[in-house]
Amino acid sequence: MTDHTNRQFDTELEAVRSRFLQMGGLVESQIAAAVDGLANGDLELLERVVARDDEVNTYELEIDQACNHILARRQPTAGDLRMLITVVKMVTHMERAGDEAEKIAQQAKRIHEAGRRNMPAVEIWHMAASVTAMLRQALDAFARLDIQAAAQVVRQDKGVDAEWQGVIRQLVTYMIEDPRTISRSIELLFIAKALERIGDHAKNMCELVVYMVKGQDVRHTGLENIEREAASN
Amino acid sequence: MTDHTNRQFDTELEAVRSRFLQMGGLVESQIAAAVDGLANGDLELLERVVARDDEVNTYELEIDQACNHILARRQPTAGDLRMLITVVKMVTHMERAGDEAEKIAQQAKRIHEAGRRNMPAVEIWHMAASVTAMLRQALDAFARLDIQAAAQVVRQDKGVDAEWQGVIRQLVTYMIEDPRTISRSIELLFIAKALERIGDHAKNMCELVVYMVKGQDVRHTGLENIEREAASN
Repeated sequence: MTDHTNRQFDTELEAVRSRFLQMGGLVESQIAAAVDGLANGDLELLERVVARDDEVNTYELEIDQACNHILARRQPTAGDLRMLITVVKMVTHMERAGDEAEKIAQQAKRIHEAGRRNMPAVEIWHMAASVTAMLRQALDAFARLDIQAAAQVVRQDKGVDAEWQGVIRQLVTYMIEDPRTISRSIELLFIAKALERIGDHAKNMCELVVYMVKGQDVRHTGLENIEREAASN
Repeated sequence: MTDHTNRQFDTELEAVRSRFLQMGGLVESQIAAAVDGLANGDLELLERVVARDDEVNTYELEIDQACNHILARRQPTAGDLRMLITVVKMVTHMERAGDEAEKIAQQAKRIHEAGRRNMPAVEIWHMAASVTAMLRQALDAFARLDIQAAAQVVRQDKGVDAEWQGVIRQLVTYMIEDPRTISRSIELLFIAKALERIGDHAKNMCELVVYMVKGQDVRHTGLENIEREAASN
């Protein structure tokens, strides 16, 4: 490759990376807005989250197209190829995380439109804070090729899963004690489920970051193995 | 490329295709077994589904690795590149569909271990039949490059989503009428949710099949557009 072609190739790779980080920033703000809207009953904010899911989808299509073009025209190898394949995989998870934010917003709209202001004090807010932090950290890990940070997210996901089980138990208890809370509790259950899924996607993305950096596929290999890979950085 | 390299390349592509179809066959049988186990309380069968999820995961890793190798060494273009990128994307959905089968089996185990034989007659069996058929058809569409079949699956997913909404309403009614059914109903709700997700993954895979065959990304473009692409075959 000539120097010129090389520089252009680098520019294209950098454009994909930064586009993906922008997409991640949008999804992060979508989740935050959906959770804020749930907390404050801000219907306008919730409508905006639903409307902006289209922007998330557009990012997905554009990033995939850019990756396909680079793969077809530049025929990258080694680290560059791994980065592109990682982005192709990560973008699917990021789009799904955006979908979950939209689902939370839809569910929150229903809750507030039905005038259900008196929500059970379940651990949903804590789950929301955890998964938002995990998603941000997944993006940082990707941006900085930081597999220690990635391993941490995988560890945090265990905590979120435990919180999710706690929310289920708590909501079932509410429903049994006061069957008038059933509809409301089911709505909150779906919101908690969406948060749990976002945590999962953050974890999946971090496993892909480890692959991108180390060339080692750590999916399905357990937390200990991922932490070993991170330690041997 | 020499004839020999060409033949070897074709063999490699064919191996990826057939490995993916095998993985799909396994996931299909996992879903069927999980649903059978739920219906008949066959705990041994349910245990087997849980145990075999590892095989699904192994397929995912192997197929991704094979695709990466081909991309790195053969630098495919046009249709071959599209096929590989499609498989890289589809395999993520297939693995998730396998995860949902495992979740159904886990939930079914809990239901039967708690001796809850008297299950509400919700539309779960019909949903199960629908999504199993959709997954099989998604695999056929991939194998035969049949975008009419792919478009049909996308259409069927709307029906599954409607069934899912019906199951929620039905279970909420049960719970309100008889709060003793709350725990059991929540378990069934999660099973129905897993089935709905499998339908979604089948739909997502079919959108990717359309891309593979037509080179046109139809994700997020609506059913009408997908049917138009299929009609212009």
